[in-house]
Amino acid sequence: MDKKEKLRALVEGRVFTGIIQFLILFSAIVYLFESDRRHLEVDPYRTYFIVLEVMFLALFSIEYLLRVYIEPRKQDFIFSFYGIVDLIAILPSLLVVPGFRVLRILRFLRVFRLFKATRFILAVDQLGAALRQIHRELFALLILSLMLVYLSACGIHYFERDVQPEKFGSILDSMWWAVVTLTTVGYGDAFPITPGGKFFTAFVTLVGVGLIAIPSGLLASVLTQARVEDDQREADAPEDNK
Amino acid sequence: MDKKEKLRALVEGRVFTGIIQFLILFSAIVYLFESDRRHLEVDPYRTYFIVLEVMFLALFSIEYLLRVYIEPRKQDFIFSFYGIVDLIAILPSLLVVPGFRVLRILRFLRVFRLFKATRFILAVDQLGAALRQIHRELFALLILSLMLVYLSACGIHYFERDVQPEKFGSILDSMWWAVVTLTTVGYGDAFPITPGGKFFTAFVTLVGVGLIAIPSGLLASVLTQARVEDDQREADAPEDNK
Amino acid sequence: MDKKEKLRALVEGRVFTGIIQFLILFSAIVYLFESDRRHLEVDPYRTYFIVLEVMFLALFSIEYLLRVYIEPRKQDFIFSFYGIVDLIAILPSLLVVPGFRVLRILRFLRVFRLFKATRFILAVDQLGAALRQIHRELFALLILSLMLVYLSACGIHYFERDVQPEKFGSILDSMWWAVVTLTTVGYGDAFPITPGGKFFTAFVTLVGVGLIAIPSGLLASVLTQARVEDDQREADAPEDNK
Amino acid sequence: MDKKEKLRALVEGRVFTGIIQFLILFSAIVYLFESDRRHLEVDPYRTYFIVLEVMFLALFSIEYLLRVYIEPRKQDFIFSFYGIVDLIAILPSLLVVPGFRVLRILRFLRVFRLFKATRFILAVDQLGAALRQIHRELFALLILSLMLVYLSACGIHYFERDVQPEKFGSILDSMWWAVVTLTTVGYGDAFPITPGGKFFTAFVTLVGVGLIAIPSGLLASVLTQARVEDDQREADAPEDNK
Repeated sequence: MDKKEKLRALVEGRVFTGIIQFLILFSAIVYLFESDRRHLEVDPYRTYFIVLEVMFLALFSIEYLLRVYIEPRKQDFIFSFYGIVDLIAILPSLLVVPGFRVLRILRFLRVFRLFKATRFILAVDQLGAALRQIHRELFALLILSLMLVYLSACGIHYFERDVQPEKFGSILDSMWWAVVTLTTVGYGDAFPITPGGKFFTAFVTLVGVGLIAIPSGLLASVLTQARVEDDQREADAPEDNK
Repeated sequence: MDKKEKLRALVEGRVFTGIIQFLILFSAIVYLFESDRRHLEVDPYRTYFIVLEVMFLALFSIEYLLRVYIEPRKQDFIFSFYGIVDLIAILPSLLVVPGFRVLRILRFLRVFRLFKATRFILAVDQLGAALRQIHRELFALLILSLMLVYLSACGIHYFERDVQPEKFGSILDSMWWAVVTLTTVGYGDAFPITPGGKFFTAFVTLVGVGLIAIPSGLLASVLTQARVEDDQREADAPEDNK
Repeated sequence: MDKKEKLRALVEGRVFTGIIQFLILFSAIVYLFESDRRHLEVDPYRTYFIVLEVMFLALFSIEYLLRVYIEPRKQDFIFSFYGIVDLIAILPSLLVVPGFRVLRILRFLRVFRLFKATRFILAVDQLGAALRQIHRELFALLILSLMLVYLSACGIHYFERDVQPEKFGSILDSMWWAVVTLTTVGYGDAFPITPGGKFFTAFVTLVGVGLIAIPSGLLASVLTQARVEDDQREADAPEDNK
Repeated sequence: MDKKEKLRALVEGRVFTGIIQFLILFSAIVYLFESDRRHLEVDPYRTYFIVLEVMFLALFSIEYLLRVYIEPRKQDFIFSFYGIVDLIAILPSLLVVPGFRVLRILRFLRVFRLFKATRFILAVDQLGAALRQIHRELFALLILSLMLVYLSACGIHYFERDVQPEKFGSILDSMWWAVVTLTTVGYGDAFPITPGGKFFTAFVTLVGVGLIAIPSGLLASVLTQARVEDDQREADAPEDNK
């Protein structure tokens, strides 16, 4: 029990945390280069990547087992968010040994390693709390945004389907335009060319662009408010002690 | 009377509401695929779509009649916003029977079915209240935005009309550029190429982009304020009870 | 004197104001179509436009003279912002009579008619007050934005000048890219293609886009605050009366 | 000592500050034109530029020496932020004399002259204070933004790598798309064309665009709050004096 406590202190300590953070970052960067097929097919690189994957498998497995071991109620960790993320993060490397084919399918699970890192970011908790506080508003705004996307797509489909059938031939195709326009990304791969379509777009963007941007403003407001309340609590605390 | 009350409880109850919400969503998705001409012309699909439309007609008609029936003052519902929306939402299917031609014209009325759904979204009320609270500011900002669009169009027309007459040949054509630029969508189908036009665009965007973005910030502020006031009311309520 | 007072009441009354507002809007729409060369060269239209211009000249001249007449201290109005705008708004039509050539040069002054309309928009005062309240912040953010544009242009010029000399060959050319990118318009006429240029752009946009968007958030905040203060004043007022 | 005090008053006075501000602006504009190779190679211009550089060298050197001289604790200024910026700002001109080749390498250091100007902008202090106040939130949001960019790149790489290998062939290439899309710049040089990629993009932009925009809203909130606190301090101050 005493040994377990020491281990727990070690695992939750700075050094161990730092090493894991570095490993996550390192594996993300390795994946960055491994994803490039030109690197993957060249022979010396391929060997390096396999060696690195085996190393990540070993280290993240040890970390996972340690985290299970130090937890008094094992199933609580295993079935928790981070317990599952940690397990999925091992999977892609786990299958590096038998064959190369299987690896390619699991390769994409490696992005889960990045989710491991959120454990160490305090702001994730803050942002999570802010999101939870306004989750009803955000859900409603999401529904309204989706409705706006759908209705905009219906409108532009009506105006442009005859002139540009390959881009606005169906509402589903038009929804791609609606998302790209209302988020103001505006790639320029699809845009109205008829006067009616242009007028409709002008109307929809001038009115609708604001709707899509509200959640960001709400989150900023809630985060600021949380700061103010924290400051007040700190300012009030000494008075309470008197 | 007792039967009517039971029906009213049923119509306003969870099960009925859930079925209607599902039907609205389902009809919106059906419309999504029906709008694609490739699907519409292929024979098996065409039959399916007609069957579905007849079903929507039947179900939404029953819903409409139920809503009229349970309402004590019938004309209040019939001429209310949702009463009219519900009626228009039936129309497109109503005309599926006689001929295919007429259907195509009414097809676009089907988007009104989506407006039926806003009845069930609480946020629509919240957003509506927020909009009403700042409707004067929003109206004024809209006027200013339209003026900005017009003046920007006049300016770019002056600089670019000789070099790109097909895009900036008239102020009306230039207004398309102004909307696409000031909302920061920026498709890239029309942009200045003369030094004067580029300088004018730089000036207009650096100053004007902010104006178009103000309503979104205002709405976020008002929604946050409404939340704070709600929280305070809840916090104050127990004190009042003492 | 009594007659003058009556005239003043008339000029500042609803009917007169409505007529002027309509005339401004009408002349703006006429200019919209007149700016299209295709309309201007066709003969019947040309005559209509000249007739309309003569009408605008007559009506806006009468309005200007009335406003000068009713003002007790004439020079105060003549040299005020709206006095000058009203005078400039007459100029383009004033020169319709002698020749067509001169008209084309003065044609662009017609946009000043739109500024006449701001007199009737309450929000212009509100926005003006908000702008004045944070004019120091806005001025500073403008300087910083210009510096960001300049520095971004220097950076991208360094990375892209050899590969795309026609677009990033000088800092002045690169500044066009910087404005289009930092305002997130992103036409797509100029973008980096070298890895260094892309990395630099990623850095500059992730950090810099926020700076350009601050003024809009500031204005929204100040306008909201002004609303809150107005509400409080209204709420406090009855208490003061007790 | 008395002479030194007079010099200090002179250097920190309006006239001297104005001259330096003008010189910084002037040298930035000169650099603007000098960066254009077409100007640099033409002979009369080349001579003008060298003359101007020698002048900038002389004047900024005098300014630097004056600033060192008037400072009681010289090392404090020399190793301060502005001390180093002022020194680097001289370097590019310093090397104009021996040869032209070396100049071209140092030319880019001239942008540091612009940083000299931030000394005179009050808002830099304000913005700096605001940034410092929310530096933890900003750092966390930056990390989350980078994670979002990375994860979006992984996702789009999965959907588009087979169809557009030249644009989404590796995660690194896809990250360029992710930055351009999530900042809503949207050049249009890279966008998804597969249904899966489009659906993924719609999901990522509708959810992720807000995250990137939060810092700007936070900064606007903090700046507004700073204004309110300043106003309150001013309003409270007279009461304290009583």
